[in-house]
Amino acid sequence: MGILVVGSIAYDDVTTPHGRVEMSLGGSATYFTAAASFFSPVRIVAVVGEDFDVGALGFLEARGVDTSGLAVRPGETFRWSGSYGEDMGEATTHATHLNVFQDFRPVIPATHRSEDYVFLANIDPELQRSVLDQVEKPRLVICDTMNFWIDGRRDALEKLLRRVDVFVLNEAEARDLAGEKNVVKAARRILDLGPSRVVVKLGEYGVMLVGAHRILRLPAYPVEEVRDPTGAGDTFAGGFVGCLAESGDDSYEGMHRALLAGTVTASFNVEAFSMTRLREIDRQAIDERCRHLERVAGWRPWAAAVPPGC
Amino acid sequence: MGILVVGSIAYDDVTTPHGRVEMSLGGSATYFTAAASFFSPVRIVAVVGEDFDVGALGFLEARGVDTSGLAVRPGETFRWSGSYGEDMGEATTHATHLNVFQDFRPVIPATHRSEDYVFLANIDPELQRSVLDQVEKPRLVICDTMNFWIDGRRDALEKLLRRVDVFVLNEAEARDLAGEKNVVKAARRILDLGPSRVVVKLGEYGVMLVGAHRILRLPAYPVEEVRDPTGAGDTFAGGFVGCLAESGDDSYEGMHRALLAGTVTASFNVEAFSMTRLREIDRQAIDERCRHLERVAGWRPWAAAVPPGC
Repeated sequence: MGILVVGSIAYDDVTTPHGRVEMSLGGSATYFTAAASFFSPVRIVAVVGEDFDVGALGFLEARGVDTSGLAVRPGETFRWSGSYGEDMGEATTHATHLNVFQDFRPVIPATHRSEDYVFLANIDPELQRSVLDQVEKPRLVICDTMNFWIDGRRDALEKLLRRVDVFVLNEAEARDLAGEKNVVKAARRILDLGPSRVVVKLGEYGVMLVGAHRILRLPAYPVEEVRDPTGAGDTFAGGFVGCLAESGDDSYEGMHRALLAGTVTASFNVEAFSMTRLREIDRQAIDERCRHLERVAGWRPWAAAVPPGC
Repeated sequence: MGILVVGSIAYDDVTTPHGRVEMSLGGSATYFTAAASFFSPVRIVAVVGEDFDVGALGFLEARGVDTSGLAVRPGETFRWSGSYGEDMGEATTHATHLNVFQDFRPVIPATHRSEDYVFLANIDPELQRSVLDQVEKPRLVICDTMNFWIDGRRDALEKLLRRVDVFVLNEAEARDLAGEKNVVKAARRILDLGPSRVVVKLGEYGVMLVGAHRILRLPAYPVEEVRDPTGAGDTFAGGFVGCLAESGDDSYEGMHRALLAGTVTASFNVEAFSMTRLREIDRQAIDERCRHLERVAGWRPWAAAVPPGC
């Protein structure tokens, strides 16, 4: 089944202890799409400036991504600049130039409105809601957010969440939104706001999915060289939603498999700057690493094959 | 098979956001034994002062623990006083009175020297090594430590580690000992020091086991009310080693099951102060929670039974 994603496309300047890149392709919708397209057809709706090199999305089109929903507006593309310290945790933002993204009002083309899976990447919750007003009856609405909206647009976010099936956020955001330190209790409180599933990203410690009747956990893939964490969350979401759309299995077991796919896709992404790894890997590499993570997590303790170096 | 444990017995004064206890039964050997005795026979070697209420160990003797290796010395029992903040992370130590523990030189009784499993709880690495000099050929030597010894007695610790099979430590300790931020790489470096398995405790995020050819991960049990983390690490080790001794299975699969047993036993312990929960639960409660954690971790996605409240 197909996926509609609405979010940002950006140029990033990123500094980590491993180096620096400037004007590299970034943005929540871009990372999500690069990951999801390994699994399912994706249509992307976003805005870029006249400075944007549309050819940079060629690797996505080659994987069947529909970029016809891309709006090119006068002005410059969204630009983000940030850095990571030795612990590779939260980024420090140095500059955010919204540019053309400032006036982004997502318009969903008629051809895009009947996708089964809708992913609302991290943008203003008002805009996320406007997307839901335009689409037909999606099978599953998955939504991301960030502290900026939790702190500044809580009402709009809560209004949105009533229409969201799966809400994806990180641990600090979950605690912040719920006003509760214990992450399991925080997730349960967020369930009360509307979503039937809350996915809490735990960074290097993996991910937790909380539903009304079950909790699922999955460790992160044991990456030994994290060079650039930018886009890890969106790449996780891309693999997760991509896998769900591929299998059509929204059961807890299907969700657990999708957490695995998202986790593994994100593990590749952090190994190099920008989208380097997402460009060069293929589905087979993802599948092999999924089999390995299944062994690490104890799903297939009997399996003998071990990828080199693991 | 049986377990020999050598470590501390203490009286603890503990303050957490949920309350305070004074002169409560504590110590690494005590927590370990309380946990391990659910699974296997345990013989404990430790020292207490004349003030110690030996009757307080009655609940362990009722579970078949051999306390004949307990030395009662003139003076007071080891006393520790500490507190935990809102995040329930590392304890802040307010006072450590070694008392009779100051001159503890473990003497292993002849009846205790042929146990198959030897657990060296967190004491001076020189003393840990002296235990190994006294025992016959154990099947598995498992060892814990703390930052204090890593920073202050590194040579003695490294000398000890050449004779240890499974080394258990927490994440900060692993990074400190290895001089490496990435926890997987840190664990690999520690393997080079001697142990064939390194178990890295990740607190609320679970546990990781690293061997030469495999990595195993297990999430923590999703506890919703942590009231006192004291003894969590030793309780984990107790369940882990207890399960290994019960099954006799030292394969990676057996180790993964033992990580599960340790994790679950520790999850009970943190729900109340001191050893309250370890006194009142039984093996059935542990087994039920193990089945639940297997579902959370995805080992048995098909299992239907869910304990109340989960």
